[in-house]
Amino acid sequence: MERLFDEELTKLKEKLVRMSAIVEGSIELSIEALKTQKEEPGCEVLKREHDVNLLDIEIDETCLRLLALRQPMAGDLRFITSAMKIGAELERMGDLAVNIVERAEELRDLPLLKPLIDIPRMAKMAQDMVRDSIAAFIARDAVLAEDVVRRDEGVDGLNDQIFRELLTFMIEDTATIKRAVGFLLVGRHLERIADHATNIGEDVIYMVKGKTVKHYLDRTHGSGCEGG
Amino acid sequence: MERLFDEELTKLKEKLVRMSAIVEGSIELSIEALKTQKEEPGCEVLKREHDVNLLDIEIDETCLRLLALRQPMAGDLRFITSAMKIGAELERMGDLAVNIVERAEELRDLPLLKPLIDIPRMAKMAQDMVRDSIAAFIARDAVLAEDVVRRDEGVDGLNDQIFRELLTFMIEDTATIKRAVGFLLVGRHLERIADHATNIGEDVIYMVKGKTVKHYLDRTHGSGCEGG
Repeated sequence: MERLFDEELTKLKEKLVRMSAIVEGSIELSIEALKTQKEEPGCEVLKREHDVNLLDIEIDETCLRLLALRQPMAGDLRFITSAMKIGAELERMGDLAVNIVERAEELRDLPLLKPLIDIPRMAKMAQDMVRDSIAAFIARDAVLAEDVVRRDEGVDGLNDQIFRELLTFMIEDTATIKRAVGFLLVGRHLERIADHATNIGEDVIYMVKGKTVKHYLDRTHGSGCEGG
Repeated sequence: MERLFDEELTKLKEKLVRMSAIVEGSIELSIEALKTQKEEPGCEVLKREHDVNLLDIEIDETCLRLLALRQPMAGDLRFITSAMKIGAELERMGDLAVNIVERAEELRDLPLLKPLIDIPRMAKMAQDMVRDSIAAFIARDAVLAEDVVRRDEGVDGLNDQIFRELLTFMIEDTATIKRAVGFLLVGRHLERIADHATNIGEDVIYMVKGKTVKHYLDRTHGSGCEGG
């Protein structure tokens, strides 16, 4: 029983690492599709989505088996329930890479607004966050997880900057509106990928420290509302 | 032990229903903030976010307690692990209501583009999906859950329509760009709320039928890629 449990746990970790690698690759390919305006990288992302979905289901089932196999102790229990959530987060990231491919398809026949620099930079930041959040989970490393959570601000900042630049483009020349809106959405897709990686980071901190950092920001703070 | 388990399970259901009601209210208030251009409804959403976050943590902890209390049988096991995921989905919806409030704040001092009709309609559809997805979960009702999943398409369609209309506004008059982009983002926030409700619906179907409908759409289908 003990050995079966350990084997299943090892399989679970392997599946999460594999799923994360596929998703990271999909993010890169989706930006490639945007940059090169070619069809192939996008098709590869669509193909990979199938694998990502299968892995999500497999991870779910492995976790349920682990929970049913025996009553795991506190530490293992949190690891397993976190793994279920993390599988779902990775699956959403895969969906967002597909969304970027959809934007790339809409933009394929239009001339690029300008050389893409900030968007690939943002994508790279998001990919690194994905990889590190999973590494932090496997190693139960709260310090690395905290680092991932912190990096989310940089991604948000870059997205705001891209957003403002695109608004300027649109106002100066209405012929750019369709393209600018497309890139604006790509920025948001990437921002959301980083948000999912942040969620994983927060889950890891919760798992390791047993307290939640999920909601440590009080949003009334800094708003015009009373009691902020 | 048995009674303690049942009591905890009842508490869990109550918490999910309460959380869902708060989130539904927040969606309504966020649209109120957008429509009336007043500050109060938005402030109320920010206040509620605190309660939503606390409930998310409480639900998580109740689920962990339930899993630790005894080795739940297959049906209960799925119910509890689904509840953990559903708490997280509701929490994200609360965040999205906050995002709508942020857009309302940006738009407060600008004249409305036109009377708001489609956005409140879309919000109503999303609210109904949230309520029904939680009702389906509590009642383990796969038919209602399937209905929720189906309704997502209507929300997406309405969002596409809003999107196209806003693009036309921007192209016709660049003075509308900032506002149009704001409303375009509100449309996406609502679309994502409906997506989260759809995720809950899919979780319920998975829980009841024990098979996944999560990923029943092959995305290569209809794309220009080979093998679609």
